[in-house]
Amino acid sequence: MRIAIDVMGGDQDSAEIIAAGLRFASEFEQVQIRFVGRQESIQPHLSALNLASIANIDVLYADQVVEMSDRPSLALRQKKRSSMHLAIKQVASNESDACVSSGNTGALMAIGRHLLRMIPGVDRPAIIKAIPSTKGRCYLLDLGANIGCDAENLVQFAAMGSILCQSIEGIAAPKVGLLNVGEEEIKGEAEVRIAADLLKEHDKINFIGFVEGDGIYQSEADVIVCDGWVGNVALKTSEGLAKFVSQMIAEAFGENILTKAQGLVAYPVLEKLNQQLRPDNYNGAILLGLNGIVVKSHGRSTIDGFYQAICEAHKAIKQQLPDVMKESIEDVLGSDL
Amino acid sequence: MRIAIDVMGGDQDSAEIIAAGLRFASEFEQVQIRFVGRQESIQPHLSALNLASIANIDVLYADQVVEMSDRPSLALRQKKRSSMHLAIKQVASNESDACVSSGNTGALMAIGRHLLRMIPGVDRPAIIKAIPSTKGRCYLLDLGANIGCDAENLVQFAAMGSILCQSIEGIAAPKVGLLNVGEEEIKGEAEVRIAADLLKEHDKINFIGFVEGDGIYQSEADVIVCDGWVGNVALKTSEGLAKFVSQMIAEAFGENILTKAQGLVAYPVLEKLNQQLRPDNYNGAILLGLNGIVVKSHGRSTIDGFYQAICEAHKAIKQQLPDVMKESIEDVLGSDL
Repeated sequence: MRIAIDVMGGDQDSAEIIAAGLRFASEFEQVQIRFVGRQESIQPHLSALNLASIANIDVLYADQVVEMSDRPSLALRQKKRSSMHLAIKQVASNESDACVSSGNTGALMAIGRHLLRMIPGVDRPAIIKAIPSTKGRCYLLDLGANIGCDAENLVQFAAMGSILCQSIEGIAAPKVGLLNVGEEEIKGEAEVRIAADLLKEHDKINFIGFVEGDGIYQSEADVIVCDGWVGNVALKTSEGLAKFVSQMIAEAFGENILTKAQGLVAYPVLEKLNQQLRPDNYNGAILLGLNGIVVKSHGRSTIDGFYQAICEAHKAIKQQLPDVMKESIEDVLGSDL
Repeated sequence: MRIAIDVMGGDQDSAEIIAAGLRFASEFEQVQIRFVGRQESIQPHLSALNLASIANIDVLYADQVVEMSDRPSLALRQKKRSSMHLAIKQVASNESDACVSSGNTGALMAIGRHLLRMIPGVDRPAIIKAIPSTKGRCYLLDLGANIGCDAENLVQFAAMGSILCQSIEGIAAPKVGLLNVGEEEIKGEAEVRIAADLLKEHDKINFIGFVEGDGIYQSEADVIVCDGWVGNVALKTSEGLAKFVSQMIAEAFGENILTKAQGLVAYPVLEKLNQQLRPDNYNGAILLGLNGIVVKSHGRSTIDGFYQAICEAHKAIKQQLPDVMKESIEDVLGSDL
């Protein structure tokens, strides 16, 4: 197994991305880690290592960088020597089995579509991630790859989410819900309503109807489908609230000597809670629908967070994700293809 | 001061709404509470009381009910004898100073616009609510009144949110942000980008640019503006996560004797945290932009929650909200009117 890592992406320091890659490489010796990026961003961090003696690490230099502010179309056309482009190309040319980047999401999607192409039957990639919920995990998609989805896109996302959940969680008929502003059928945005009508006709998708924002954490569905605009807001809002809760806990227990003592006693339990809430522990979202594995890391994740994103890529390789998706999507969407 | 309460709305039991109203009436003797609803939904809950001796409670019977599944246009045209219609009419005819309902949001907005009319310069009402954040409170709007806002609507929401925040929090130039999927200017949905360009031109609105979902809780702005579709998802997702965190805390401390003991010690602090997170404590959203005070309560709030919504109506009356809004909006939006 070989994973290409774009070390230039995001608002993140390359040093942290490389540290995460080195940790992964030392723990999974059978996985080849290839760092892709500017020489001056990689070399200083590897100079202390004797690379000749570490069999599962190598580098690929790139002299361009896709900036967070680059338009996707510009990144695609004018940055063919960028670390992002080269990392994805590794997957397209079968030199790597997956790539991980914390760079510009729009560019990642545009370059991914161009180099890897879409799985037949899927028009657009969707970003999917498992989120903790009362009874386990809930797969939410799209998390920001697409702004302005039509009903057909949403149906394809539902099919892909269902197949992924089936494959990873082993749930025979995952419950699939559509994110909406109300549970009654008349509410919601026009395309979401049309998608609901279409999903009811699909006997291979276990569509349970509309789910409101609070349903994400209450295990109302195994897969929740929405436009990338709404999904991104839901995800980021959750991250913000989780961070806020952690701050409130720290503050509440830091107020005075008594609460400090209480905090000390309760520390192990609170620490476990903090771990459960930490966005880093759920970092690494898959660009589903591409003919290859591309994992998007949060642009502001820590070493732990980026490590988690590499683990997601590793899991997707083991599950042969694009092959499973290709085989199942025709079966699920049927005559729509 | 007089507040009309629609006791029929929402998925809620009328008994809870009436209990909340009775509690408020007993605490604020100078405020007149008028229950509006079906006789059979009100009378049983008041029969134990000697109404003649309670000067600040009375009733107004309505023989129709706006259902959660009613289309707003139908509710407006065919349910003129509904509790919702009569409660809002109380405000229009100046028989009440505000009304509170937990019913169908779309219908509340449609009937509100029809009976109360809009403040000059504002095309659509927006639902606004203060949400807890690291440094105080953040006003988020729209929370679900409008699906599909154009740039002009968003600018009007920004102006109204800024005026409300100024009036309630006493902040001279509240920081106003636009909710978006990325902080870079090129990202986001088309109307949000246009709204950003328009807001930059307004010297009476302290526009700070785009804010992502996590910024809501991190005090990046005092007022955050978005489409009702996105705002509703952000709010409901937060409510779901807050509930999930409370469940996790209870579970973590309930695991074994040791953690139970730790939980007991930490209980007062955790209870305070739970109170801070409880959506009920932030219940009661104002339909901003109407020429009168209409407060929307969450359809599934408890007695405490509905009580909180009545308190919001009470606050808005004391602040003479519609008058302040009318006076300030022209000044803020200036030549746009």
